[in-house]
Parts: sequence; C-alpha cells; structure tokens
Amino acid sequence: LKDSKKGEFKLLLDELQPYDIARIFESLPKKHHTKFLLFMNPEEIADLIQELEKEVQLEVLTKLGIEKSGHVMDLMDNDDLAFLLEDLSPDKIEELLAGMGREESKIVQNIMNYPPETAGRLMTNRFVWISKHYTVREAANKLKEFAEFSETINYLYVINDAKKLVGVVSYRDLIIADLHEKIEDIMYKRVISVTANTDQEEVAQIIERYDFLAIPVVENEVLVGIVTVDDIIDVVISEATEDIEKLSASGKAIDFDTKAYVAAYRRLPWLILLLFIGIVSGTIISQFEETLSKVVALAFFMPMIAGMTGNTGTQSLAVVVRGLITRNVDKKMAVRLILRELNVGLIIGVTCGILIAIIALVWQGSAVLGLVVGSSLVMTLIIGTLAGTIIPLLLYRLNIDPAVASGPLITTLNDIMSLLIYFGLASMFINYLM
Amino acid sequence: LKDSKKGEFKLLLDELQPYDIARIFESLPKKHHTKFLLFMNPEEIADLIQELEKEVQLEVLTKLGIEKSGHVMDLMDNDDLAFLLEDLSPDKIEELLAGMGREESKIVQNIMNYPPETAGRLMTNRFVWISKHYTVREAANKLKEFAEFSETINYLYVINDAKKLVGVVSYRDLIIADLHEKIEDIMYKRVISVTANTDQEEVAQIIERYDFLAIPVVENEVLVGIVTVDDIIDVVISEATEDIEKLSASGKAIDFDTKAYVAAYRRLPWLILLLFIGIVSGTIISQFEETLSKVVALAFFMPMIAGMTGNTGTQSLAVVVRGLITRNVDKKMAVRLILRELNVGLIIGVTCGILIAIIALVWQGSAVLGLVVGSSLVMTLIIGTLAGTIIPLLLYRLNIDPAVASGPLITTLNDIMSLLIYFGLASMFINYLM
Repeated sequence: LKDSKKGEFKLLLDELQPYDIARIFESLPKKHHTKFLLFMNPEEIADLIQELEKEVQLEVLTKLGIEKSGHVMDLMDNDDLAFLLEDLSPDKIEELLAGMGREESKIVQNIMNYPPETAGRLMTNRFVWISKHYTVREAANKLKEFAEFSETINYLYVINDAKKLVGVVSYRDLIIADLHEKIEDIMYKRVISVTANTDQEEVAQIIERYDFLAIPVVENEVLVGIVTVDDIIDVVISEATEDIEKLSASGKAIDFDTKAYVAAYRRLPWLILLLFIGIVSGTIISQFEETLSKVVALAFFMPMIAGMTGNTGTQSLAVVVRGLITRNVDKKMAVRLILRELNVGLIIGVTCGILIAIIALVWQGSAVLGLVVGSSLVMTLIIGTLAGTIIPLLLYRLNIDPAVASGPLITTLNDIMSLLIYFGLASMFINYLM
Repeated sequence: LKDSKKGEFKLLLDELQPYDIARIFESLPKKHHTKFLLFMNPEEIADLIQELEKEVQLEVLTKLGIEKSGHVMDLMDNDDLAFLLEDLSPDKIEELLAGMGREESKIVQNIMNYPPETAGRLMTNRFVWISKHYTVREAANKLKEFAEFSETINYLYVINDAKKLVGVVSYRDLIIADLHEKIEDIMYKRVISVTANTDQEEVAQIIERYDFLAIPVVENEVLVGIVTVDDIIDVVISEATEDIEKLSASGKAIDFDTKAYVAAYRRLPWLILLLFIGIVSGTIISQFEETLSKVVALAFFMPMIAGMTGNTGTQSLAVVVRGLITRNVDKKMAVRLILRELNVGLIIGVTCGILIAIIALVWQGSAVLGLVVGSSLVMTLIIGTLAGTIIPLLLYRLNIDPAVASGPLITTLNDIMSLLIYFGLASMFINYLM
C-alpha cells in the first residue's frame, strides 16, 4: 500500500478520522505497523491509539520505545489511559509510566485510585478553566493557548479565587458576548456537578436528563475533571449489555472475539447452578412418583406449566429492571407496582387458565384434569408475576443490582414452585383423575 | 407555593434547568398549571414542554390556546414536536399546527413523512449554516444573529454556492482563528454525514464511533438537518430497552405507569403463543407415554434437560444480539462465530453431561439411565448453543431484527427438541432401563 511515500501518507492521515485510521492500521499486516508508526508524530499516534483494542494498544506502545511511548501517553486522554492500564501488573504499569511526564503520570495514577464505574474513572483533565475575573477577550486568549490540549467540548469552567467551581461558559456564549464583558456577568451560575465517587450510571442519568455535553467533577467544590458525553454513550451501552448479560445469565464479557474455552468457562458456573436446581425439580417430581405413575397424562402438561410460569416471571423482571434505570422507586411506588403486577397476574392467569382447561378437557376427555391443570396455571402465573416483581425490588432496596436476579434463576425458581402446586393439586384430586 | 409574586418566580425560573422546572410543574396540582404557564414566555414554555410526558405536553398546548401554543411550537425542536404529534389523529394534528408559522409547520410535517426510527425523524433544523466564502468575522456575526435559535451544539456547517455541504467548523475553531481568515481555509472538509433514511441505530453507531456531538443529515448532498448527541443517548437507551423487551418477550412499551389491563393485554399474545408451543411439547411427551409409564424416573430429569437446553440457547442468543449492535457480521465472521459456539457447546455439553450421568447413576442406581440422561444432555446442549447462534444470524442476514428470536421462543423450541432427543434415546434403551 503506502510503503514509502511519506508525503502522500501524511496528507491522507490529516484528512481521515482517527477511527478510520485505526481500522486501516488493524487491517495491515503486522510487519507494516512499525513503518506506519514511524511516519506519524506523537499527537497522531495518541489519537490513533485511543481507537484500537487494548491488546493492539499495548503492542503499539511497546513498539514505540520508552521515550516516544511516554510522549504519546502524555497526549492521551487520562481516562482512556487509566482504562488501558487497569488490568496490567504493577511492574508493567511502572515500566510504561516511566516514560511519561511526572505530572501526567501522577494524574493517571490518581484516576486509577478511584473505584471502577465511578465518575473519577471516566473523567479527563483536558478541560480549560478560567477565573471569574477574566474578560471575554482574556478567556478567548486562554482558550487559544490551550486549544490543542482541551477536549473538543464546548464549555469553559469558571473558578473563583479559592479555586472553587462557580460557573460555566459555553464557547457559544464567548462568541456571542462582547470582548470586554466580564466572565462573571455572562457565566451560568447554577452549575450541576458530580463528585469523583458518583456512580457512572448516575452520571449518565444526569447527562441524559439535562442534555449536557459534559459535566464537571468536583471534590470539596474544587474542579478536578470533566466527564464528556462520548464516554457516557459508552457507559449507557455497557450498562445495557451488562443488564442483558445478567438477565440471560450469559456470563460476563463474552463478545465475538472471546475464545471458545474462555466463553465456555464463563458460562459454565450458571449452567452448573441451573443443573443442580434442575435436580431439585427432579426430586420434587420423584416425591410425586406414585401420583405420576397412576396418571401419566399429568406429565404432558408439566413443561407447559413450568415454562409459562418461568416466562411471566421473566417478563415482570424485565419491566422492573429496565424501569429502574431511568426511575427511582420509593415505598409508595413499590406498593403500586406490586399491586399492578398482581392485577396483571390475575388477568393473565385467568385467561390462560380457562384456555388450557378447555384444551385439556377436549384433548384428554377429563373435566377433573382440565380443572387441575387450569387452576394450577392460574395460581402459578399469579405467583410467577409477583416473584418477578418483588424479588428485583427487594434486591434494589438492599442496594443489590436487581439484574442479578437473572431471568434463568427466576425461571427455575418458578419452575420448582409450579411443580409443587401442580402435583400438590393433582395428588389431592388423584381419586377423581384415575 | 408561588401563587402571586411574578418577579420572584421569574428569577427562580431563570436559574433552573428545564428538567427541574418540569419536575416542579408536574408536582403542582393541576389548578396551578394555568397560572404557572401565564407567568412564562413562549421561549420558556418551549424549553419546559420538551421535558414533560407526552400527555402533559398536550394538556399544556391545549391550555395555552391556539395562538400562544402555535408560538411555543414554533420554538420547540422540530424532532421533538414530530415525536409528540406522531400518535395523534390527523384532525388533531391539523388543529395544533394551525397556530404555527407556515414555514415551521411545513418543516414538522416534512419530518413526520420520514419512516420512524430514521435520521429524518430525529433531525432538527436548528443549526447554523455559513457560506464557504465567509470570513471568520462574518461567521461569528451570523452565529450571534441566530444565537437563540440554534441548538447549543458547537458546529457550524459550511455550504457552497450550490447549497451543498462542503465542510464543518467548530465553535472552538472560530475562537482560535483570526477574524479575517476565510472559512474555506479553516474548515474540516471530509464531513461524515448520514441521509434522512439512515436507520437511527446506524446513526448512533457513527456518533459513538467518532465521538461526534452532532452529525449532519443530507439529501443529494444538500444539508437538511442535524442529529444531536442528546437524541442519540435516548436512541441508545430505547434500542437497549427494545432488545431486552424482545429477549424477555415482555411485550412492547410497558413501564411503571402502564395500566394493569394494558400491560396484561401486551403480554398475553406471547404467553398464549407459548401455551400452544407447550401443548406441542405435551403432545411429544404423550407419544412416549408407554416409555414413560414403564420408567417413571425419566420424568425426574425432564425439566432439567429442557431447562438447561433452553438456557444455553438464550446465552448464545444474548451474545449474538448484543454483539450485532456494535459490529457488522459478514459471512466469514458468521462461520467463525458458529464454529466458536460449536466448541463452546461441546465443552459445556461434555462437562454437564458427565456431571449429570454421575448424579443419575448415584441417585437412581442405574448406569444405563445415567448414560441416557448424560448423552442426551451432551447432544441437546450442543444443538441448543447452535440454535441460539444460527437463528439470530439467519434473521440478521434476512434483515429481520435478530432480537425477535426472543429468549422464550428459542427456549421453548429447544425444549421441544430436547424432549425428542431425550425420549428417543430412552425408547431405544428401554429394555435396559427397566
């Protein structure tokens, strides 16, 4: 491809978005990587590297040698760098940080000290602050000075003499204002901010709510960083993926590139748990062996009842888990929700119960069997709906992520309960069933 | 609360974010709403109304009377207005649009003509375009003029004499540049844009990929609108919610405020479908009535095998559905993915199969039963994993949303298949099982 002409290559690079350059880089055979990097300056590599997969990032940094890689890391967003480093061994981290400027490396280490999934981990220090005493002209000059350095986010943060955050000015405000106006007079004073320990889900909620492009992070009212909307989109996507992973018990972090044995290893714990719960179901059925051997037809409806109860549970669970993402639930709301689901369970249960009773009657020619199957379904659907609502709400109340009450778990618990009800009822009426 | 002092009220309004004003508005008893609105000017109401629920929005617009509501609608974002109007009857739409400026109302009607979930529906015309011949000073002046009107997004779009989109300039670029520089010389020329018919999921992918704050929408290279990042966050959230709704078959658009009978009505179609699939399972079991009545212990392992097969299917499904959100899959990738899952199925199947064979042997004291249960599980887990991968990939290939192959559906299909394999094997070995 572009194996020698540096000039042309440079021109092309200038015009492309970092994301596209990264895709080209990845598609090249590894032996061209070194040459590719040789043609680029640290700024360009810093842009490129943020769009690569973790493994490739490390490869690139290693290839660059300690001095140039240190320079590149100085130019990377601190939050992205912290994300890259978090899984590495302390030795490797030290080795990489050695080439960085002292101040930059301190900031990165500082970010890594915040707990995962908090604003502190997402924030960058690539913002521009100005004093409230500045004029618009002074602010514009400071912005020009830091132009390359600051993220392309259109706010300037205003601090007072005690370095506390007191306002915010958008780039648009600057353009519109007269050059001699005081920042103090044009700034927006009711700044909404988060602390470094705020959970990333909460940060995302605030940004979504107010349609912000960035939000300042403060500690004791002192500005320590900003979280930008592009990081928030990633948070929203990863939180949704996490919910789906938990609801389907599909195991953590399996994507298209995960190796088969790793994926199997991550999925197995859930399956083995379910296997043992399945044994519990089996034990319950074995308690009713006598009933079952007298009326084998009871087995025909077993999967249907267990399956439907499990499904209503998952339906309710999904509604609660998704609802909790955008809404807070207090006691009053919880009671209202449980009552609503009770009604839903009643309507669903009676409808499906009557339907299956008629089918059982016609199919097996036994009114008692129809009655047993139908009334079992009414009861299990109501209980299934309530379990799918109450369990996640309880977990939420106990500050446990409600999505861990994953679909399969609720399904299997509902299975067990529905078998008890079904065979219990059948045993009571066993004399009429034969 | 604030029943009379207009001055104080105004001051407070000025300082609050629209989202917070909306929450206050909603918390007030309805009789205060009219007064609340009387104190506000159309700009403020337009900001407020965008943060309210659809029902309340309509209530407010009706209360304002045709003239003022028209004025408010002129000031609302076109995409939000189109979203509000889309569910209403044509008569009602005409009535509401009557008060609007002719041009504005034409734009809204135009937006509503695009198919739902496309860029055309999300775009707003509140952007500022400039000619490429402008100087920086002229651009800044135009921006000042349209300051109130344009969304607070920091790009200016540059068009040529034929009105075609040729570049983009950020507000930051403007501040940094000298006032006499030509826009042509400072603009970024490789503008990435979408068309009005681009699917909203694709728009979200592009914005996420390039970390844009807004993306221009063009038709025949002519700029017709922009999609902003705040709308994209809403898209990402609603697409994830849709996926979860489909994967859990929980029915469309059920939230905490949905009434019980509506929620039941939305959930019932799925449950009734599953009920009939359950009857199919029952019919299969009834075909093996003889086998089952000879060895009732076979029933003990039935729910476990069906449940585990269903679950592996859901696990694979979740991985594929989530993966497709950020990645495109070609034939090569599909083959790789299917082979990967085949391996996963093998590892999972053999592990769980050996485990359950030992349990069955110890529990029921029959080596043949252990063998039948164990080898059934190996087979069903492999097939379940493949079904959970191949079905969504096929749907994706046919341009059908893979998430409609919802979890419960795959679960139930896998149920049926696992029963056939299990009882088929058992029937083959029936003489050794007794």
